[in-house]
Amino acid sequence: MRATVIHGPNDIRIEDVPDPRIQHPTDAVVRVINACICGSDLWAYRGVASRVPGQRIGHEFLGIVEETGSEVTGLVPGDFVVAPFVWSDGTCDYCRAGLQTSCPHGGFWGEVGSDGGQGEAVRVPYADGTLVRLPKDAATDTKLLPGLLALSDVMSTGHHAAVSARVRAGSTVAVVGDGAVGLCGVLAARRLGADRIIMLGRHRTRTDIARTFGATDVVAERGQAAIDTVKELTGGQGAHAVLEAVGTEESMRTAISVTRDGGAVGYVGVPHGGSSGVDISQMFDRNVALAGGVAPARAYIPELLTDLLAGVIDPSPVFDRTVDLDGVPDGYRAMDDRSALKVRITF
Amino acid sequence: MRATVIHGPNDIRIEDVPDPRIQHPTDAVVRVINACICGSDLWAYRGVASRVPGQRIGHEFLGIVEETGSEVTGLVPGDFVVAPFVWSDGTCDYCRAGLQTSCPHGGFWGEVGSDGGQGEAVRVPYADGTLVRLPKDAATDTKLLPGLLALSDVMSTGHHAAVSARVRAGSTVAVVGDGAVGLCGVLAARRLGADRIIMLGRHRTRTDIARTFGATDVVAERGQAAIDTVKELTGGQGAHAVLEAVGTEESMRTAISVTRDGGAVGYVGVPHGGSSGVDISQMFDRNVALAGGVAPARAYIPELLTDLLAGVIDPSPVFDRTVDLDGVPDGYRAMDDRSALKVRITF
Repeated sequence: MRATVIHGPNDIRIEDVPDPRIQHPTDAVVRVINACICGSDLWAYRGVASRVPGQRIGHEFLGIVEETGSEVTGLVPGDFVVAPFVWSDGTCDYCRAGLQTSCPHGGFWGEVGSDGGQGEAVRVPYADGTLVRLPKDAATDTKLLPGLLALSDVMSTGHHAAVSARVRAGSTVAVVGDGAVGLCGVLAARRLGADRIIMLGRHRTRTDIARTFGATDVVAERGQAAIDTVKELTGGQGAHAVLEAVGTEESMRTAISVTRDGGAVGYVGVPHGGSSGVDISQMFDRNVALAGGVAPARAYIPELLTDLLAGVIDPSPVFDRTVDLDGVPDGYRAMDDRSALKVRITF
Repeated sequence: MRATVIHGPNDIRIEDVPDPRIQHPTDAVVRVINACICGSDLWAYRGVASRVPGQRIGHEFLGIVEETGSEVTGLVPGDFVVAPFVWSDGTCDYCRAGLQTSCPHGGFWGEVGSDGGQGEAVRVPYADGTLVRLPKDAATDTKLLPGLLALSDVMSTGHHAAVSARVRAGSTVAVVGDGAVGLCGVLAARRLGADRIIMLGRHRTRTDIARTFGATDVVAERGQAAIDTVKELTGGQGAHAVLEAVGTEESMRTAISVTRDGGAVGYVGVPHGGSSGVDISQMFDRNVALAGGVAPARAYIPELLTDLLAGVIDPSPVFDRTVDLDGVPDGYRAMDDRSALKVRITF
């Protein structure tokens, strides 16, 4: 089969790789019908996160179960499924508590020895614990596919930020970062009943999507100017709940600064280095909490799926370009130079 | 009247100062009957936190209302009261939300221009919002006085750590720090239904108190050895809820390290400098949350008082020495050299 492989910074190739096959009785093989490129894949693409040359890449996909191991009981060939961006056994303490990202048997698609999502097929470990079944007719519903694909990461991650920031009915929310996760955070905050949603972002096409997702205000400034504007918009107090969807020192500093005393920052931007802008002294006096981390998408997909199928949420506008497998290297370039927000791959 | 005054590092004096008088119609004057020395007073005593020479000090006291301003409606002379360690107006958004420490009209006893708690009398701003009335007969109940005094700070702060760390029925809890706040954190965790409480501390007399407060395990090691032991005690997973009651880089690093994935650190140790041991990368992968800060004691006193009067909690063992006003400088020395855990001052 053919799959996306990363050989080094700016070196993404489509190559012939071995067909996946069942290795353990709990495995399934899934034929991919939709995948996508994530903002976090760009850290590898840019060389900030290191990869072994020849490593697979991609961690978001929809597909059809092709084969199942002898111990897989909840899936049969032909099932249409979505994969969360980590696999998990579904049975351990953490999985049962809804924190599948801490499953001791879990792993990330594309890590050494595993298949990546940006390929024609994927061997899925612990298929029963990992995959979520979708309605079969949705597999050919081209309008629904992008939204379903978003469940694998960005929509679930945006939701995790909102839950971690304690968004509730009537909250004033600020979202730092106008990437796909930040935009999905807007959608999640609106779904949880936020009254006011302030998007901090300066890319007009993205903040326009934020408005259609429920943002009531857009702040295009950065740094102290952004902080001042959010304070001004909130009667000097800041937002009850702040979603940090970038992961840089500056974005974290901004997020903490615009949080109302007693409020919380829900952080899902993959942190790059050390304390990343966390000033505990500033948090202490104001009782600002910090929660979040890598999103247990597997725990959230069922409830988000229900609302997606009911038309309550539609994250599909975060995809603004579609490529086939051969177009993936172009897709990376487009996301890297910000000419694309998020690229969907069809097979 | 006479009051404690700080002139510089290691320079605590008892001096004659002007008698407090009503300055605003919302003020009350309280005649102090019990006060105490706080671990956080030692930061000033040691010169780590700067003070203006001649500044008052002390922020925990019980007393009798002597005089009230014309707008005070909830208190009359003769009322027995406890003061939380900050004053607050009782009417603003933050006070109504139970975060009185963020009251825009609030302040700390002993800050420049205010009376400190370690003196014969105190002018109390916003008396209705600040003071909590106690049963009158308790004022002469020498057995009850130390526990009531603990409500002003250490018991409420320990409770804040426990609430912030999300202690609930069945939780496994770790408490970093065997000072008076950490010990009260043990008491608070037990009150909230913790199943197992691991005290990290190496002072035998203090960890013995922890055991009587409900600690099921004591870990005397520090640093990596302490982390390893807590992991061992918890099947490799760590504690659901960790109370950080020290405020140093090492204690915060330990607290985060012994937190179970998906758990929370409730931090109430006054942080000293920068990010103070917060490694966001380590928190991200494991979904460790960080919450807490300066405790809104005013919000907690009523519920804690109910349980204290009912005998459910008794924090009084945290006081292991009693001095009169002239003995206060000795009390500081004793707490500084750790020969005393917490010093009560009687008038």
